[in-house]
Amino acid sequence: MNLVNHQVRLAARPSGLPKRSDWELTTDPVPAPGPGEFVVAISYLSIDPAMRRLIDAAYREPVAIGAVMEAGAVGRVTASEHPRFAVGDHVYGGFGVQEFACSDGTGVTRLDPLLAPLSAYLGALGIPGLTAYFGLLAVARLHEGETVVVSGAAGGVGSVAGQIAKISRCRAIGIAGGPDKCRWIVADLGFDAAIDYKSRDVAAALREYAPGGVDVFSDNVGGEILDAVLTRLARGARIVLSGGQSQYAAQQVRGRARYLELIAARASMAGFLTPDYASRYAQARAELAGWLREGRLTSREDILQGGVRAFPDALLKLFAGQNIGKLILAVP
Amino acid sequence: MNLVNHQVRLAARPSGLPKRSDWELTTDPVPAPGPGEFVVAISYLSIDPAMRRLIDAAYREPVAIGAVMEAGAVGRVTASEHPRFAVGDHVYGGFGVQEFACSDGTGVTRLDPLLAPLSAYLGALGIPGLTAYFGLLAVARLHEGETVVVSGAAGGVGSVAGQIAKISRCRAIGIAGGPDKCRWIVADLGFDAAIDYKSRDVAAALREYAPGGVDVFSDNVGGEILDAVLTRLARGARIVLSGGQSQYAAQQVRGRARYLELIAARASMAGFLTPDYASRYAQARAELAGWLREGRLTSREDILQGGVRAFPDALLKLFAGQNIGKLILAVP
Repeated sequence: MNLVNHQVRLAARPSGLPKRSDWELTTDPVPAPGPGEFVVAISYLSIDPAMRRLIDAAYREPVAIGAVMEAGAVGRVTASEHPRFAVGDHVYGGFGVQEFACSDGTGVTRLDPLLAPLSAYLGALGIPGLTAYFGLLAVARLHEGETVVVSGAAGGVGSVAGQIAKISRCRAIGIAGGPDKCRWIVADLGFDAAIDYKSRDVAAALREYAPGGVDVFSDNVGGEILDAVLTRLARGARIVLSGGQSQYAAQQVRGRARYLELIAARASMAGFLTPDYASRYAQARAELAGWLREGRLTSREDILQGGVRAFPDALLKLFAGQNIGKLILAVP
Repeated sequence: MNLVNHQVRLAARPSGLPKRSDWELTTDPVPAPGPGEFVVAISYLSIDPAMRRLIDAAYREPVAIGAVMEAGAVGRVTASEHPRFAVGDHVYGGFGVQEFACSDGTGVTRLDPLLAPLSAYLGALGIPGLTAYFGLLAVARLHEGETVVVSGAAGGVGSVAGQIAKISRCRAIGIAGGPDKCRWIVADLGFDAAIDYKSRDVAAALREYAPGGVDVFSDNVGGEILDAVLTRLARGARIVLSGGQSQYAAQQVRGRARYLELIAARASMAGFLTPDYASRYAQARAELAGWLREGRLTSREDILQGGVRAFPDALLKLFAGQNIGKLILAVP
């Protein structure tokens, strides 16, 4: 076991995308658990679009300068003075960008490594999968036969959202950037159609693939893609917002806001946060795991190597849209 | 009775606000009703923000060049070959900007002139009042004790919306332009507070007047006012969109779109069209008329003189925000 704990801390508040100099790599001793605490050796870190928001001055409670960067992670308990977590347990929690974390168990979930590989608990069985699940099934209340459009369709949330739409007997259209992602979501994930927003006009493509209009839009991108979908809504459409990746690093959003299309379509746009559904996580995870086991759901993780040192570049890779599947950083 | 029918027709599709030269005044003979038709002598024309949208090339079915401008109006039947409308009946319908209209009765409602002055059927008992009513009570499902914010609060929809909020035992905060409007909605209509967006920062004023956040926002203005309210939403807030007056004549909407605030607030923004509730108009009008009679609801109409000739200027007055109460054009 390492005798030191490498950590990534926020060094400066970035404008736009964070530069390397906005981060600081620090070395602390590996913590020892106090009474009611346990220590986790982190295996995988989740690299999320929302991380850009967490460090923004405009965010409600941004990560403080000098604090360890927040991150969801999975790992294994290596020392425990906690009554409910034992050495060897596999766990998920907001452990931060570091190699070891000390926790009192708040917000920590025990995981079953026999059900799925540990990394899937940051993908289809993790917050991205749960976000897709509750967004479509609880917020949008998807009905069989509806036309569902998903943005960021090759990413962690979008790839699961499109598959849940198919499992729910809906038509799934994915919007993604580049031919590789578009091929993957149709050929491997079973989406009915893919729109490469880098080479096609999204509104025109939707006229072709969703001639009756869009019933449900699961969006975590925002910006011009949201504006394009707003012009193609079916009557009574529901837009579910789980994020706005294109907007997180934008200094000033420009462009024609098409929100007034909501009126003619009698449509709604609703925001939600996945942790509001925490009491239903276990049931949702069981259902998602069942679909995984039956081969109806694919969880693809794009796992980067390099440990916490590689975190600044991993985040930039995410915003450059280079990942296919959920982006994860392995911690040695 | 006039022997001619003066009409205002669309002469050119405007960019921005319509100029006088975008309209043409024409003179036709007064129509005679055919079988199943009747003729209405128009008394009052409704001057609406949505009129700008109706003539926009981007609108789904814009008013054609050369066609009589669409408008809601009230008047009296002067000739009839229709089984259900008799000479002397008072009626509301989409009669257009003209002195006489011929109708087959589609979308026409018979009015009771003893219940309220005829002009109130374009105000609190008309589409503006019904829009406020269904927006707050059917779409937002207002609960007692909530904090309701209303934009365009001295206009046709907003002035009724704030009063319905008070009747529903909610806190009503109006946003309007200028001290006269702000004084009127508090002193005469009973709003709890008014925010003059021309002299105050709306988000800062909401921090003061709605410290617990905004539960319901009835918006027909949009733009920067919507963005400001988005930053002050209470958890579970509902935004009801009945229009976007500030955006109708805008060539390009600029500014920071704050729609991502919907996520943290678990809030929704829903659009609707009042005619979807046509089957409930009679019941809603009876309730609104009851409140009028009891003195709990004030319908103020700002009635311009000058007849259909004055229509181009009346529309500009509306967009200059000069009216207090519902703007109406009297037709002699």
